[in-house]
Amino acid sequence: MKAIEFYFDFGSTYSYLSVMRISDLAKQFDRKVIYKPILLGPIFKSLGWETSPFNLYPLKGRYMWKDLERRAEKWKIKFRKPTLFPANGLYAARIAVANKDEPWCVSFIEEVFRANFELNLDISSEEVLTGILGRIQNLDPDFILQTSGEPSNKNKLRIETELAKERGVFGAPSFFIQEEMFWGDDRLEDASLVGM
Amino acid sequence: MKAIEFYFDFGSTYSYLSVMRISDLAKQFDRKVIYKPILLGPIFKSLGWETSPFNLYPLKGRYMWKDLERRAEKWKIKFRKPTLFPANGLYAARIAVANKDEPWCVSFIEEVFRANFELNLDISSEEVLTGILGRIQNLDPDFILQTSGEPSNKNKLRIETELAKERGVFGAPSFFIQEEMFWGDDRLEDASLVGM
Repeated sequence: MKAIEFYFDFGSTYSYLSVMRISDLAKQFDRKVIYKPILLGPIFKSLGWETSPFNLYPLKGRYMWKDLERRAEKWKIKFRKPTLFPANGLYAARIAVANKDEPWCVSFIEEVFRANFELNLDISSEEVLTGILGRIQNLDPDFILQTSGEPSNKNKLRIETELAKERGVFGAPSFFIQEEMFWGDDRLEDASLVGM
Repeated sequence: MKAIEFYFDFGSTYSYLSVMRISDLAKQFDRKVIYKPILLGPIFKSLGWETSPFNLYPLKGRYMWKDLERRAEKWKIKFRKPTLFPANGLYAARIAVANKDEPWCVSFIEEVFRANFELNLDISSEEVLTGILGRIQNLDPDFILQTSGEPSNKNKLRIETELAKERGVFGAPSFFIQEEMFWGDDRLEDASLVGM
């Protein structure tokens, strides 16, 4: 079964669409999804952007929200424009990195994205993250928050982000089938089809 | 019959894909296409970019050429990476503006794009433009070049570009169905479907 590596940032709008679509598509195309949370912040900084290009360029931003609304409707994904954009996904990303092999990790990722883009909750808040973790199986949120904040785990997220940049990632979502890269939710189907 | 307004720049890579696809799609969806040549240069300048973002951000540029190759293959459009990018489409745009109601204008637009992205010719060269005009029906290339360079026509192109920006255009291709905007060749189908 060919793997599809899926780079995303918890604050990224089009990553939301892909997170909500990729499980079904992977089943349909018989792909294993490898979730790769990264931080777009350092990648944008290296391009000279201090925040999301959607904030730097208001025309682009205004269009993006309209487009996102249309795409969410097309894919039947619930969407509400968050008050805060881009949300700070640092803590959520650390939790996802530390627990990438846990069976509940994909549910956690999906729930954090829903919190941000459907429920308009602040995903940088410990309370929101604890709430999500508490609702998934028999997890111990405090233990999870603590281990994900350890220096070795923080470093893992930094390295994943650095590696992504070295592979050519400049935005999210980005997909890799081996070394072939696809950028944007619009390319998820094409990525899934490689080698079929 | 609902009109689709199609903003493009002769140097824009994804505009090439749309130019080669839009006639068939318009027939299929019973749309009238209104071709709107503009210059991305002044629009990019207002965003603080001195050239195409694909040149300003090499990671983005490298990906774009790869993506364009894949998309061209998908749509069965011949494509060769031009030596010069972005090409200067100023003279071609002036000709298209001056002759927008001529029955040969769409062929001219298509042939200029093919010259740039299939044949790797310099579309800012008078010789190349004269050659294209000469191959279309019984045209007088010298007369056309001369009238398209008149101040009133130059001004028309400036105004079209300014209006596009005011409507929210920040890149090309962009499509409008009345005041609903769609950006990018990836949205041509969605734009064609509005109100169907």
